[in-house]
Amino acid sequence: MSSLSVSKWPGIIKTYGDFFSVSKKTPVVTLQEGNTPLIEAPRLADWLGAEVELYLKYDGANPTGSFKDRGMTMAVSKAREAGSEAVICASTGNTSASAAAFAAHAGIRAVVLIPEGKIALGKLAQAMIHGAEVVQIDGNFDEALTIVRRLADEQPITLVNSINPFRIEGQMSAAFEVCDQLGGRPPTYHLLPVGNAGNITAYWRGYKAYREAGRIDRLPVMMGFQAAGSAPIVLGHPVAKPETVATAIRIGNPASWKFAEAARDESGGRIDMVTDEEILAAQGKIASLEGVFCEPASAASVAGLKRAIAAGWVESETTIVCTLTGHGLKDPDTAIANAPKPSKAPATMAGVCKVLGL
Amino acid sequence: MSSLSVSKWPGIIKTYGDFFSVSKKTPVVTLQEGNTPLIEAPRLADWLGAEVELYLKYDGANPTGSFKDRGMTMAVSKAREAGSEAVICASTGNTSASAAAFAAHAGIRAVVLIPEGKIALGKLAQAMIHGAEVVQIDGNFDEALTIVRRLADEQPITLVNSINPFRIEGQMSAAFEVCDQLGGRPPTYHLLPVGNAGNITAYWRGYKAYREAGRIDRLPVMMGFQAAGSAPIVLGHPVAKPETVATAIRIGNPASWKFAEAARDESGGRIDMVTDEEILAAQGKIASLEGVFCEPASAASVAGLKRAIAAGWVESETTIVCTLTGHGLKDPDTAIANAPKPSKAPATMAGVCKVLGL
Repeated sequence: MSSLSVSKWPGIIKTYGDFFSVSKKTPVVTLQEGNTPLIEAPRLADWLGAEVELYLKYDGANPTGSFKDRGMTMAVSKAREAGSEAVICASTGNTSASAAAFAAHAGIRAVVLIPEGKIALGKLAQAMIHGAEVVQIDGNFDEALTIVRRLADEQPITLVNSINPFRIEGQMSAAFEVCDQLGGRPPTYHLLPVGNAGNITAYWRGYKAYREAGRIDRLPVMMGFQAAGSAPIVLGHPVAKPETVATAIRIGNPASWKFAEAARDESGGRIDMVTDEEILAAQGKIASLEGVFCEPASAASVAGLKRAIAAGWVESETTIVCTLTGHGLKDPDTAIANAPKPSKAPATMAGVCKVLGL
Repeated sequence: MSSLSVSKWPGIIKTYGDFFSVSKKTPVVTLQEGNTPLIEAPRLADWLGAEVELYLKYDGANPTGSFKDRGMTMAVSKAREAGSEAVICASTGNTSASAAAFAAHAGIRAVVLIPEGKIALGKLAQAMIHGAEVVQIDGNFDEALTIVRRLADEQPITLVNSINPFRIEGQMSAAFEVCDQLGGRPPTYHLLPVGNAGNITAYWRGYKAYREAGRIDRLPVMMGFQAAGSAPIVLGHPVAKPETVATAIRIGNPASWKFAEAARDESGGRIDMVTDEEILAAQGKIASLEGVFCEPASAASVAGLKRAIAAGWVESETTIVCTLTGHGLKDPDTAIANAPKPSKAPATMAGVCKVLGL
């Protein structure tokens, strides 16, 4: 056993700043996001029936529990550099949580617009406790987005929805980390969930930037997976009413649609879909075979790998990375609904042993 | 901006193994726990009215969302080394979540015994999805603990409740990291929540071990804070029915009581208590001023700092670390109940601007 001395991880901008649109003048707003575990998953590989070196890139270990923190440190740092007094987004999920946390750390306002309808406060808990001003408008999500765009145009307020270009820049850091953590090489295949398609776009740009910089000498094959009820890229047309248990990828008209297709085509990869049943089964196996709890959307990557293996899309004896985008604690109710229930026993040794089969 | 190359964090055993009861033969079971953020908190220091260098050690960023992972990597690795076929604990909270995750990763059984009464499934979600066998007995917590102890005595099953000595060993790693992250020095004061008192015991042992090894040249003053409704050490006697919103420190008769008093006395520190109101206020300020979401128990450290500053127990121009033991997503309901509610607006620019005061 060695005794390394550990230096403080300074967050993704100070680590990978050469690859981002930042300068020494950029005030870095960081919660020490990034540097998330890359966990070898041999038991999951066995379940999948694949003779591969399988890793889980666990971005649920970011400060607010999702990969969004990688983009948000960039978006909020650049907002401060531009003199913004607030950030704004239309979101009910991981984006609002991350925006609110980084704005709080920076000491600027965060405004979150949400559409009419019943509010799932659980999803908004993070934005609320981080002090975001949450405003529910008497209109739908598109109207909310229109208002936040206009506000950002007319006021010293920065829009941090996915159209903010610095978010995809920051998200490239996950690809850099994967290569670094693998000892200076990319995986053979990189699989991830696809919702708004910003993350597959960012990973692909990241891998290309790292090859251009001479940090790696080849590129992975990119494979993205949508939920079957929310699979516009697979179907080739927007989905008016997307439905899936994987709420973080329930998106009918992805902002980065064309970039995702480019990542697929340039890398010789695929974008396919998996059912909710496959997603939930994968979520359970990731948790029970590897001890990693991810939100349902994240499990689309592993469900996708199962499909890819069955279809013969991946070769044996290769290195595969599946990104898990968010922590399972983001949505414990879905996990509970799909987990085995507690059993009951009398308060005796014999009673407990019987239940446990001992 | 520099471009560091990042190597994979191997978890606390491979990093700090020289300080633990492990050898090259110990099979290391790791989820890459540890190496959690040490976040500078100047805005929180302002709120506290203190001219100090304040840091938050955010152990909520561990894989299962709490500091328990530091001890559990040791407990489960040593269980495997001993040839155990299962781990067992009596717990409804963070311990069972961590035990279940590490057992899953190791491919061994996890058994969780819980007492009779209404089950808060949210607290058990992690243990359940990680595949632990959760057994609810027809008896109270003490009876559950008696049964798990006997089972561990009579079967090849390892008890991973707090009496497992390897857990406190692993938890020492947090003190090592704090010193490393501060550039080879301890803080002047280290504040943390006290429930079962294992963590204050572990930090103090860690600091002493690091000084003995020549990694630091002095020791911090340790200050622990119990919840007022659950403050046996402060009161000097066990509390039969401990009550507090901070469930993770709701313990009436701490296992490491004497060690906690030793940490206090040897370091010239204090163990005091804070009210639930103070805890919830601190939780809100940590989240809204620094962007860090912790569970209520964690906020006892910052609520305690507020009390310590008011009482004149800490000097100015010192370095202070407050440990945040768990992620706020462990208990979103309490956060929601205490956060400002969303406001409503018409779906127009004017309407939204009015609500926002723009």
